Amino acid sequence: MKETITTKWLSDLAFEGEVDGHKIYMDSSMEHGGKNTGPRPKPLMMIALAGCTGMDVASILKKMKMDFEEFSIEVEGDVTEDHPKRFEGMKVIYRFIGKDINRKSVEKAVNLSVTRYCGVSANYEKAFPITHEIIIEE
Amino acid sequence: MKETITTKWLSDLAFEGEVDGHKIYMDSSMEHGGKNTGPRPKPLMMIALAGCTGMDVASILKKMKMDFEEFSIEVEGDVTEDHPKRFEGMKVIYRFIGKDINRKSVEKAVNLSVTRYCGVSANYEKAFPITHEIIIEE
Repeated sequence: MKETITTKWLSDLAFEGEVDGHKIYMDSSMEHGGKNTGPRPKPLMMIALAGCTGMDVASILKKMKMDFEEFSIEVEGDVTEDHPKRFEGMKVIYRFIGKDINRKSVEKAVNLSVTRYCGVSANYEKAFPITHEIIIEE
Repeated sequence: MKETITTKWLSDLAFEGEVDGHKIYMDSSMEHGGKNTGPRPKPLMMIALAGCTGMDVASILKKMKMDFEEFSIEVEGDVTEDHPKRFEGMKVIYRFIGKDINRKSVEKAVNLSVTRYCGVSANYEKAFPITHEIIIEE
């Protein structure tokens, strides 16, 4: 299958990307010559990972009829000091809030995402290690 | 260096990510149970690559005092048929419009980005091959 995206330069270091009709703006920080009019590209890699595994987990838990009130995903990335400044590791923290959330079910959903469904995770794992943590709060 | 992002579940397969105060919405397509309220995560990987190398190239060409009128970047990705559906290759097409654009300078800028500066590219190259094409139009 083919995926295609386009991105056009706006001015200085600002770019406008488009996917399926959705606009995504990117820019560099002030200290690196940009105007911070949009997210920087590297953290977008972490957003893509969070969205990919998050959709898997939300979908699998729905099929399991496991309800939750809130669900968030944090990604922490370690970036090298030397050029090219790239990720050398990421940690994905799945945080749930709700009553009667079964940890085993959540672990199963996360595991299915990481090992079978999440293509972003499968790609990144070739480049650096990814660790996972699950936090459940009432 | 550490990078951190947060992403929260909104409803169904819709998520809201945040980077440096910028919101990024993600959703799945209608056919996969989403409502297409935002881009899908996998193409965001291509957007991140386009933004990363685009900023490098725009910055290097500015230092070279090489003007252009328009600059866009297309990324084509090949996705596997089997799960996890992941990229098995990407092609980055740099397209410039302008008068007196020196191809050698553009090639040098792209090459510097790919080999020295673009961390997204350096990460992805561990997972799949990336090819590059430069198109210059008057």
